[in-house]
Amino acid sequence: MRTPVADYLQEVVDSLADEHSGVMADYIPELAATDPNQFGVSMVTIDGCSYGAGDCETEFTIQSISKPFTYGLAIEQHGLDAVLEKIDVEPSGDAFNEISLEEETGRPRNPMINAGAIAAHALIDGSSPDVRAETIRTFYSRLANRELGFDEVVYNSEVGTAFRNKAIAYMLRTVGVLEDDPIGIVDGYTRQCSIGVTARNLAHMAATLANGGVEPVTGERMLDPATVRQVLSVMATSGMYDAAGDWLTTIGIPAKSGVAGGLIGILPGQVGIAVFSPRLDGHGNSVRGVKLFERLSRDMGLHLMEAAPASRSVVRQGYRPDGHREVQVLEFLGEIRFVEAESILRQMSAVPEGSDVIVLDLHRVHALNDVGRRMVLEGVRRLHLDGHPIRLIDPESVLADPDAGDGYVPSVHADLAAALG
Amino acid sequence: MRTPVADYLQEVVDSLADEHSGVMADYIPELAATDPNQFGVSMVTIDGCSYGAGDCETEFTIQSISKPFTYGLAIEQHGLDAVLEKIDVEPSGDAFNEISLEEETGRPRNPMINAGAIAAHALIDGSSPDVRAETIRTFYSRLANRELGFDEVVYNSEVGTAFRNKAIAYMLRTVGVLEDDPIGIVDGYTRQCSIGVTARNLAHMAATLANGGVEPVTGERMLDPATVRQVLSVMATSGMYDAAGDWLTTIGIPAKSGVAGGLIGILPGQVGIAVFSPRLDGHGNSVRGVKLFERLSRDMGLHLMEAAPASRSVVRQGYRPDGHREVQVLEFLGEIRFVEAESILRQMSAVPEGSDVIVLDLHRVHALNDVGRRMVLEGVRRLHLDGHPIRLIDPESVLADPDAGDGYVPSVHADLAAALG
Amino acid sequence: MRTPVADYLQEVVDSLADEHSGVMADYIPELAATDPNQFGVSMVTIDGCSYGAGDCETEFTIQSISKPFTYGLAIEQHGLDAVLEKIDVEPSGDAFNEISLEEETGRPRNPMINAGAIAAHALIDGSSPDVRAETIRTFYSRLANRELGFDEVVYNSEVGTAFRNKAIAYMLRTVGVLEDDPIGIVDGYTRQCSIGVTARNLAHMAATLANGGVEPVTGERMLDPATVRQVLSVMATSGMYDAAGDWLTTIGIPAKSGVAGGLIGILPGQVGIAVFSPRLDGHGNSVRGVKLFERLSRDMGLHLMEAAPASRSVVRQGYRPDGHREVQVLEFLGEIRFVEAESILRQMSAVPEGSDVIVLDLHRVHALNDVGRRMVLEGVRRLHLDGHPIRLIDPESVLADPDAGDGYVPSVHADLAAALG
Amino acid sequence: MRTPVADYLQEVVDSLADEHSGVMADYIPELAATDPNQFGVSMVTIDGCSYGAGDCETEFTIQSISKPFTYGLAIEQHGLDAVLEKIDVEPSGDAFNEISLEEETGRPRNPMINAGAIAAHALIDGSSPDVRAETIRTFYSRLANRELGFDEVVYNSEVGTAFRNKAIAYMLRTVGVLEDDPIGIVDGYTRQCSIGVTARNLAHMAATLANGGVEPVTGERMLDPATVRQVLSVMATSGMYDAAGDWLTTIGIPAKSGVAGGLIGILPGQVGIAVFSPRLDGHGNSVRGVKLFERLSRDMGLHLMEAAPASRSVVRQGYRPDGHREVQVLEFLGEIRFVEAESILRQMSAVPEGSDVIVLDLHRVHALNDVGRRMVLEGVRRLHLDGHPIRLIDPESVLADPDAGDGYVPSVHADLAAALG
Repeated sequence: MRTPVADYLQEVVDSLADEHSGVMADYIPELAATDPNQFGVSMVTIDGCSYGAGDCETEFTIQSISKPFTYGLAIEQHGLDAVLEKIDVEPSGDAFNEISLEEETGRPRNPMINAGAIAAHALIDGSSPDVRAETIRTFYSRLANRELGFDEVVYNSEVGTAFRNKAIAYMLRTVGVLEDDPIGIVDGYTRQCSIGVTARNLAHMAATLANGGVEPVTGERMLDPATVRQVLSVMATSGMYDAAGDWLTTIGIPAKSGVAGGLIGILPGQVGIAVFSPRLDGHGNSVRGVKLFERLSRDMGLHLMEAAPASRSVVRQGYRPDGHREVQVLEFLGEIRFVEAESILRQMSAVPEGSDVIVLDLHRVHALNDVGRRMVLEGVRRLHLDGHPIRLIDPESVLADPDAGDGYVPSVHADLAAALG
Repeated sequence: MRTPVADYLQEVVDSLADEHSGVMADYIPELAATDPNQFGVSMVTIDGCSYGAGDCETEFTIQSISKPFTYGLAIEQHGLDAVLEKIDVEPSGDAFNEISLEEETGRPRNPMINAGAIAAHALIDGSSPDVRAETIRTFYSRLANRELGFDEVVYNSEVGTAFRNKAIAYMLRTVGVLEDDPIGIVDGYTRQCSIGVTARNLAHMAATLANGGVEPVTGERMLDPATVRQVLSVMATSGMYDAAGDWLTTIGIPAKSGVAGGLIGILPGQVGIAVFSPRLDGHGNSVRGVKLFERLSRDMGLHLMEAAPASRSVVRQGYRPDGHREVQVLEFLGEIRFVEAESILRQMSAVPEGSDVIVLDLHRVHALNDVGRRMVLEGVRRLHLDGHPIRLIDPESVLADPDAGDGYVPSVHADLAAALG
Repeated sequence: MRTPVADYLQEVVDSLADEHSGVMADYIPELAATDPNQFGVSMVTIDGCSYGAGDCETEFTIQSISKPFTYGLAIEQHGLDAVLEKIDVEPSGDAFNEISLEEETGRPRNPMINAGAIAAHALIDGSSPDVRAETIRTFYSRLANRELGFDEVVYNSEVGTAFRNKAIAYMLRTVGVLEDDPIGIVDGYTRQCSIGVTARNLAHMAATLANGGVEPVTGERMLDPATVRQVLSVMATSGMYDAAGDWLTTIGIPAKSGVAGGLIGILPGQVGIAVFSPRLDGHGNSVRGVKLFERLSRDMGLHLMEAAPASRSVVRQGYRPDGHREVQVLEFLGEIRFVEAESILRQMSAVPEGSDVIVLDLHRVHALNDVGRRMVLEGVRRLHLDGHPIRLIDPESVLADPDAGDGYVPSVHADLAAALG
Repeated sequence: MRTPVADYLQEVVDSLADEHSGVMADYIPELAATDPNQFGVSMVTIDGCSYGAGDCETEFTIQSISKPFTYGLAIEQHGLDAVLEKIDVEPSGDAFNEISLEEETGRPRNPMINAGAIAAHALIDGSSPDVRAETIRTFYSRLANRELGFDEVVYNSEVGTAFRNKAIAYMLRTVGVLEDDPIGIVDGYTRQCSIGVTARNLAHMAATLANGGVEPVTGERMLDPATVRQVLSVMATSGMYDAAGDWLTTIGIPAKSGVAGGLIGILPGQVGIAVFSPRLDGHGNSVRGVKLFERLSRDMGLHLMEAAPASRSVVRQGYRPDGHREVQVLEFLGEIRFVEAESILRQMSAVPEGSDVIVLDLHRVHALNDVGRRMVLEGVRRLHLDGHPIRLIDPESVLADPDAGDGYVPSVHADLAAALG
């Protein structure tokens, strides 16, 4: 069979073919020369599987979509505190090209507006604008798992008219956020913006963020998980300029748009998505891109705030196996995070003190995160303190190295028969 | 055993006992009379289990924490579109008492600043300020599963000095966002703010939001899931005033603070949390409240942007059971949402056309959401079109009513033996 | 003969009869009911002579033209410093209904915007809104030398929709600029704005300002000269809202407009002018009013910055009268202020030391101000110290009581013959 | 005798010697190296007489005091309309270095803030920044009647740190107010600001403005009177940055300050004044400069809004000379402008129709402006139409060429005897 995911993406692309509203960006002369009807989408899962439909292999310039990635790189190179000294993280509600500096500190309001993005670019290590731009190009290439290049034509078209960015850079120099030559920094930033990508490349880069900073195919860690969390949070509040609130309520995933028509979205722990379609709405976001994300969010339940309360029954009612009245079995299932662990502990706390053997059946648990693991082990410790011997059914060692912390280590078994044996 | 969750909360409360920075709100005379050292926390799970530590039964006024709940009620009563006509959802980056009206429409920037909250209050059905306030009190009481009352002392103290809110209300009247008497509306809004709650009550109300709008104990649906999504999204970008970006990056959960020292946070699908401690920082947020949430977020991994990529192995390698070479078994586990279903479909699409029997083993799947269910059934349909008979192992009917959509219904079995039999 | 001044005004009115652009103010329902074609003008000289053309006897409400007069009264009652504590004097460049409070102090930017005008109104002594409004009505009546009344119909129409002013008043209450009930203050302010006037009344009030605060007909001092200077200065920079700069460059006289179509201008020391025509431009100023003032300023050379360098020859070359070689006559003429006195002193300093008699011929001087008088007397003192006897020709005693300050008093004579005699 | 004007200036300088508050500008490194105690003042009358006290011959850089002069030159070169298309004239209430562009047009709010001054500089004809700067230097030199030069040290110090001005210039380039290379324009503007002047030079330049655009010593017309009126009006509302309103109310004359400590004021038709003292207040204005002007304004009655109502008695009661009952004499005196002419016409209109001879005695009139002249002649025409023969006593031909406009020319006589003869 052919997977319906690709078919679904194609169907969504087709359904928006007649959407011709919006206008091309005109302030970068070369961008205006693009075919306005181009439309491509790509989705890459956190295990690296890549889907695409439409013009998903067409190259365009990354433009503002570069902002979150360079911000992430700046944090990796200098640490979050150093970056926060230069760039705040508050949503500004402003258009992308507003200067929006904080009154007291002069810091740009956030790294998603041009002022903040230029400041982030300037933080990248490098002895010259060219070196910095090359460092960034190399970084993006590794995020995309493909060698990306500069679009020299767009770069040349843009650098000649980058008056506003130069104004912003000089203002940042005035307040001390920038320390080098503003013209050189804008030059490097314009190079960053002119890196050529396809929707598929962008979706791959987005998937690296969705995957907590690990490139899905190579497995290489590109960004620290805390950095990714920072980047995604900022995208959530500020990635869509003055439509950020509308986007977060309606679509509900961290996203970033670019003036060349690109638009990425990241669902943490799940997928990276990228669209390309050059016509822009009044906020500077791709018209078809926004509509496609609306459709995806609705169809696929991607909204971050979508509660999933149905998944709670992680604890099966405890029971006493036939012929083993001195044994009480508690069975868990699914993935154990804080909230599931809390439920498990509650079940454990219902066990009266005594010497009954407690069997914790984890064979249907497929994952625990750190918090879940620590909480379950604390339950083990407490049950043991209450007098209970503990046995684990954990054929796949999801609770590897089950030390309760006070030296007590329960026995581990492959199945109930073994645990009772 | 005693569950360590309560112990943990107590430990966190104790660890912050020496935190005495911040100042009491002074613009409401009565609030300044509170004991500044009070400190309580409560956490309520989406199945209604309630934890508490410190002064979690002390009553204080809800103040601005009422904003998201009344906003939600307004959406329930009038629909989202009607509410959006009056109140935008863009983060303003402003302090809570800034007027922050949109230049063109006069709409308040969002419902978390006073202007938007007053506009939301005015939307509540009711023939008079008292009726409206009573409707709201009743609604909150049902969210909290406890009869809440007005704090008349605070109300009287506040209504006499509510000059700024009256200014805001008259400005809203000027631009047509309000249509009734501004003084009456501010009176009702002040009543709303004076509803008495404890940290435990607030955590319960928050848990109703975390639970997708269903009150955890009564099971009563109080808000539509889409409304909850809207409310939580707005809290995420605008709930913490001009510290919203800092909060979202650092803590990473939708939250709302009140000037009386309350602070709630919601982790969708998991828990509602509430803190009470009256000393406020420069943004008007409870100092200890913010620190407690920082600790909780870090300890418990609550950040919304926390990717959990470890939980992906939802599909076990397919295998052919001994003695059944014509049968291919695909085993799934955990919870099936879009991203897991995508993985399943990929596995399915690796099955070549032919007449092999395909057994889908779901006995370790504990939940599917709508999207996951539809995607798995589409896979069933396509595999069947390729010529394969399909058998399901689904002892607990997690894929209830497994109609592939084209009339084909696979057989359902309790275990592998039955499926092969 | 008939004076051509009235004819001239009539001609200007006629020339603008076809000007129908602009729109009626619509936010005060009753104002919209006025005949939009009404057009009147009046000019009153500082000696009380009144000219009029067109609908100069038609009554309309004073509206914002009340602002400078009430501001002046507030200064009279409390002193400038007390008023400056509540209301700044900086041009805001804002529209009339902007709140425009200073960030740090909360003071309205100036008394010509509504916020400042409401604050000025609230400063007027009075135990109630009605008493305050009555005090103001009486004050205006004396400025106009005619009993003015409240237009109850407009008042009632306006007070019901004064939402923005109430918003402003509550905001002022919040920051402590107002201390009384904001609603009562806006009520009183609305009464102030509803005082009925004609163009002729307004021109008379304006003439009182032009006359340094002395009502031209009764001779009653209504405002201190320093107060008038303050009022006129503020009108110059802020009287025409966000068109203030355009007005000052083009017309060049302190002015104030009102939403009912009134517009006054004051040429210090010369005339007060008032126009009435209800259609307003985008800044809220009467269209015909502005055009009429443009014409008057151009035709009559009224611009404050109009240098008049031709009037400088105040000193006639000194000469020695026939038969009196020991006598040197210095003849002055015109009005002696600082700049003319400087010229006189220069002439005096050219007189070499010695015992020559110096005759200062003032018979063609018609006025000296304080500075001029002091400077001329200082010259007398110094010439006398140099050894010269001094004689004055001053038949009309323009230099009354010519004490040089050191005890020396020159002799005074009716004409040259007497001085030489 | 020695004129007391110089003594007075010296006394004022001495009285402020102990004023040491304020701080040196530090953003231009070289400026900070100046002796902070320097203090000089100069005053130049419109007939070119120059006074000075203190360090009035010390050279410093003109800085922002160049703004009004270059604005004037731009108007001369391109006409007012063309300049208004690029630079508005509204007071901004902002600090000098705020960008303050109009939202719709992008025009700087006025030519006294840096944005407007840079735009005005860019309008000066010239093929390169150096040519433009040289044109300006030459123009200023002619205004000052002395060859001025560039201070290369300050220029070099300033051009290296002119980040904010470069930011502003790029922003102006973005909105199309500038069309050339922003860096070059800022370079030229910085050269303009680095022109070296003394207080005496500046007072001379100011006197040229006071004299309606005619350099007082050479008599050369440097600026059109209408241009001067425009420049002075803009200085009045915007010359003192965010203290403009305070300045106009307190001091009451058009003024401009510079960061090097200079400060000029212009009293139209009277004098130009300049002060130099480097310590600046929070608005960027020279502390001693402001205090000196306060003293001068108070002592010398220089306030523009100072009404001088005492000077009105321009018409002496008409009389019939002994033995000439058929003759009526009207005697005028002083300077005849609109307001005096109005009074004369009123007197004339009191003359009944008939054939009485009317003698207009102008021998004590020392000046008429255009308006006064036209009005008096119109009175002559009308009296003649009423049947009166008219005779003028005008020994000095102040009413030269007294044609009534309808062909009638009254006879002119040296004195009353001649007129009656």
